[in-house]
Amino acid sequence: MVLYVVGLGLGDDQDVTLRGLNAIKKSQKVFLENYTSVLGIELTKLTEFYGREIILADRDCVETGADEIFADAKNNDVAFLVVGDPLCATTHADLILRAKKLGIQVEVIHNASVMGAAASCGLQLYSFGQTVSIPFFRDEWRPDSFYEKIKYNRLGGMHTLCLLDIKVKEPDFEAMCRGRTVFLPPRFMTVNQAIEQLLEIEAKRQEEAYTKSTLCVGMARLGQKDQTIIAGTMEELLIQEFGAPLHCLAIAGDVHPLEQEVRKATDAIKVCAADDFLCVFADA
Amino acid sequence: MVLYVVGLGLGDDQDVTLRGLNAIKKSQKVFLENYTSVLGIELTKLTEFYGREIILADRDCVETGADEIFADAKNNDVAFLVVGDPLCATTHADLILRAKKLGIQVEVIHNASVMGAAASCGLQLYSFGQTVSIPFFRDEWRPDSFYEKIKYNRLGGMHTLCLLDIKVKEPDFEAMCRGRTVFLPPRFMTVNQAIEQLLEIEAKRQEEAYTKSTLCVGMARLGQKDQTIIAGTMEELLIQEFGAPLHCLAIAGDVHPLEQEVRKATDAIKVCAADDFLCVFADA
Repeated sequence: MVLYVVGLGLGDDQDVTLRGLNAIKKSQKVFLENYTSVLGIELTKLTEFYGREIILADRDCVETGADEIFADAKNNDVAFLVVGDPLCATTHADLILRAKKLGIQVEVIHNASVMGAAASCGLQLYSFGQTVSIPFFRDEWRPDSFYEKIKYNRLGGMHTLCLLDIKVKEPDFEAMCRGRTVFLPPRFMTVNQAIEQLLEIEAKRQEEAYTKSTLCVGMARLGQKDQTIIAGTMEELLIQEFGAPLHCLAIAGDVHPLEQEVRKATDAIKVCAADDFLCVFADA
Repeated sequence: MVLYVVGLGLGDDQDVTLRGLNAIKKSQKVFLENYTSVLGIELTKLTEFYGREIILADRDCVETGADEIFADAKNNDVAFLVVGDPLCATTHADLILRAKKLGIQVEVIHNASVMGAAASCGLQLYSFGQTVSIPFFRDEWRPDSFYEKIKYNRLGGMHTLCLLDIKVKEPDFEAMCRGRTVFLPPRFMTVNQAIEQLLEIEAKRQEEAYTKSTLCVGMARLGQKDQTIIAGTMEELLIQEFGAPLHCLAIAGDVHPLEQEVRKATDAIKVCAADDFLCVFADA
């Protein structure tokens, strides 16, 4: 029996590969990982499309309760669906490792991921350095390990892809104090919030890893019909509206001649919608 | 009319997405870009599968002769197929830009690319720095701009993905001197050749960007059924057999605890074949 770890790509039901769809159809049980990303389609539509019940797998289910998945996979084909690619933005290496140690055969089915689709911003993927995650700041908890990484990337001329925090199924501590288990509504960091936090850390550190004038590209719903890509300085992007999640942000390093066309186009910030992803280029 | 730029993924006909297949079926003409990558399937099988004649597009056709593609796209839907993702390892940004300037509507359909699938080597994609290309050395022409980039990545703890040279439809200059246009057989750089060239440059520069003992992962035919992934030092990989193209190479930077399992597994170099892509992990 096989545990298929299937990348769904970035958009909707049409972005699965033929190989992936075939694996899903063969599977007795289908789990969908839903704590590191979200697909641009409702679950009911996906259920209908696959002709399979889809079991939502939250972090607990995958990190501590994966036994259910493994037990099923010992006797039947099971599909574990991941938005994007299974090994890219969030590696499910741990799940795969544990499955293999239990003697379960694992097959990974690749697909597009945000780390590839980020090339839509017009900056060459070749020239991206290490990727950083920007976590939601809370009260006193304002971790800034991303700062050194962005600084090192930019000193070397490299761009930086910032993946923005997602909070799904976070416990409501106030309710828990009153003895009830309640979850807060999901939260997805916007490009604006990310830039606010980035500038807060720059103001504190003052090492000029980046400034208000640094060229960035904000991206929302990459690979989806209504994706939005806006290039501009941090200051400019701070007040742009990117709409529904997920958002991510590229901070430019040195800009190559071809990439310059992006910069040219951004004197008056461009809003790129729908399939017009490269209009930052085309309108230059 | 639409110019669909369709990523085919890495393996065979089954790796296209439903969205991509739909675009191909709608198109009057189908071009396949075949000078930057190759698919693990014969052209005849692909032709059969799509039910469409496939026109091979070499570098000349795309870079100078794209007028044919554009002329078709003005009156009919046209599909331009790219192995992997259209914007990742090789960005076809230039083609897309030109099409848009001619008023042609362009739709990019993403897919898995080598830059994502390289995560199969067990090193986290997050921690990769800028990507380098290793060109075939010739006589006196031994360009080493990759050296500084690898050095900078490794000083910052980052891994480096090395994409290896491909020579398709290279003119045979000897024959041309005799007045005939003849092309040399295609050549694809192996992991072994890449490491030889890397070590030659290290011996010349002696800045210890890397050494014979640096941990690397050699990868061949990523995403295909018979993919081969071998981790080891440069010296060890130099004598491993990776088989048919395409090959690529990851040079490790600082290795994270989870990634350590790769290193542990590599004391006696592991050969990972077929769907066993993570056996560098699983056998640890």
